[in-house]
Amino acid sequence: MTNKYNNVYIKDTYTIAGIYEKDGPLKKYFNKIYDQDFYYGTETFEQAEAKMLNDVINPLIKRSNDIDLIIAGDLQNQIAASDYALRNKNIPFLGIFSACATFGEGLCIGANFIEGKRANNIIVATSSHNLVAEKQFRNPTEYGAPKKKTTTFTSTGASGMHLTNEKQPIKITATTIGSVQDQGITDVNNMGAVMAIAAADTIEKHLKNLKIKPSYYDLILTGDLGIYGKQILVDYLLKKGIDISKNYNDCGLLLYDINKQAVFAGASGPACSALVTCSYLYKELLKGTYKKILLVPTGAIFSPTHVFQKQSIPSIAHAISLEVNN
Amino acid sequence: MTNKYNNVYIKDTYTIAGIYEKDGPLKKYFNKIYDQDFYYGTETFEQAEAKMLNDVINPLIKRSNDIDLIIAGDLQNQIAASDYALRNKNIPFLGIFSACATFGEGLCIGANFIEGKRANNIIVATSSHNLVAEKQFRNPTEYGAPKKKTTTFTSTGASGMHLTNEKQPIKITATTIGSVQDQGITDVNNMGAVMAIAAADTIEKHLKNLKIKPSYYDLILTGDLGIYGKQILVDYLLKKGIDISKNYNDCGLLLYDINKQAVFAGASGPACSALVTCSYLYKELLKGTYKKILLVPTGAIFSPTHVFQKQSIPSIAHAISLEVNN
Repeated sequence: MTNKYNNVYIKDTYTIAGIYEKDGPLKKYFNKIYDQDFYYGTETFEQAEAKMLNDVINPLIKRSNDIDLIIAGDLQNQIAASDYALRNKNIPFLGIFSACATFGEGLCIGANFIEGKRANNIIVATSSHNLVAEKQFRNPTEYGAPKKKTTTFTSTGASGMHLTNEKQPIKITATTIGSVQDQGITDVNNMGAVMAIAAADTIEKHLKNLKIKPSYYDLILTGDLGIYGKQILVDYLLKKGIDISKNYNDCGLLLYDINKQAVFAGASGPACSALVTCSYLYKELLKGTYKKILLVPTGAIFSPTHVFQKQSIPSIAHAISLEVNN
Repeated sequence: MTNKYNNVYIKDTYTIAGIYEKDGPLKKYFNKIYDQDFYYGTETFEQAEAKMLNDVINPLIKRSNDIDLIIAGDLQNQIAASDYALRNKNIPFLGIFSACATFGEGLCIGANFIEGKRANNIIVATSSHNLVAEKQFRNPTEYGAPKKKTTTFTSTGASGMHLTNEKQPIKITATTIGSVQDQGITDVNNMGAVMAIAAADTIEKHLKNLKIKPSYYDLILTGDLGIYGKQILVDYLLKKGIDISKNYNDCGLLLYDINKQAVFAGASGPACSALVTCSYLYKELLKGTYKKILLVPTGAIFSPTHVFQKQSIPSIAHAISLEVNN
């Protein structure tokens, strides 16, 4: 489902990044860095993630004071980081889940609410925490389980974007809500391969529905396919006659320097595309480095329960056009 | 956030209920009953739930053939029942989570998309499965753990509603998206008490924003407060000068006969309010038994992880006005 917008603008963003993200190439773009440890003054990693998300949402609320609605989600079971971050704020809340594509889903819902004149000011936010994700989806890090090179590294951070109907320099001009794809892949160590099909499907529909070519954008960015998934996506789309190789990259390869950091195939997690978008992309759009960006957050809907039951891993991707307002 | 609608109608509903629900007072209203066992031809409870949800969505798609978007969520970690039910349907999907208020969240998003002319035909769907929920949130039933009388009984069923902009006999006239409440309650056996505050807050705002009194509705229905939570809500609202005692009931007390069935304080789970709405309420609105109903699905955002860490349980409720179109 592709929707176009004339009245959806980005008013503000706020980002908090963790230790590994600080060591990556985007350090100077983050609003805050929490690098003392992984607890941030709380007693557990799960509560630390909720605190980080809360600490992203609070400044956005304070700077604006006119927020109608918050849309948020994260990887914790029951999207608990979002629920706990939003407690007793007295602001209407929509909880969402598209795994690592959650930020994309939030932007799609938020943009449609604003364009449809259903709300004027919305915060879309998400988070992830490496040690929460390792514990919940993989193994507690203390186990020291070996990793495959196709594994991605769940980013630690929280990120929020304030969408508004008031004119601003950067706007959202279109979104495509993706559908759930499943090619039967069961390898939990190769999420890039799982998600590439979802990214391909959504990008193809987005371009087709808007009657544009990849060259319309200065930059096409997937969420967290990593170095191997990135190549699979390029190949998939080439077979359909769509060449994105000239202006395509993956947020997972921007957040970390995979040649210097021990992050395997690149960054992942809902915070990955959200951190890159709300820090680097937003600021470089404001500077004019880019004029038109297609952001495609990607999510592997990995349920440990279903995968233990020998089910394959579904995936989804949503597309968002970010453009400098002329 | 209260939004009003002039162009949001209910075109169709479909419901599948399980063994316990078949023994309740609403048996004749369900489209289908799965009462052979709890597996429905699959190998696990989790896959059975996904199948049930799939079997609700498929007839709604077939009867209409013009669905733009599906909005769904459930209680499984990673809302896996919805993700797996939606695999390879090639229909845009928004995954949502408000615990047992998920159906309410879906109706709020769906109604706003349609009124804002962002989509014309949307399916909102949800499910729950008693044995999946027992395993994930409480204890596997085989343990035979004793239950407190304030415990509710997670319903087994799936339910879908087709919303449209085409004129139909029943319409959604307003919704209020709730905010996350938390009064510090940690008793996982008393979700009615946890959620009553969220229901009170949302009902108060809904009535105030629309400038109406409880008597405007023929019936006010919360999602799954149960017999004890119901009384707490009545008391809460009375203290604020709002008397709902004359026309108020709880879906958890309609789905089961708590005097005859061993269901403790009543039904719960996302399927509870969704089954009651898509079967009994929809059909009785069509007959004219009711003209105006306020539906308030309630959700206790219970994260076992955070509660094991001694955190209290947040809750949320969303309100939806269902009215006969004059």
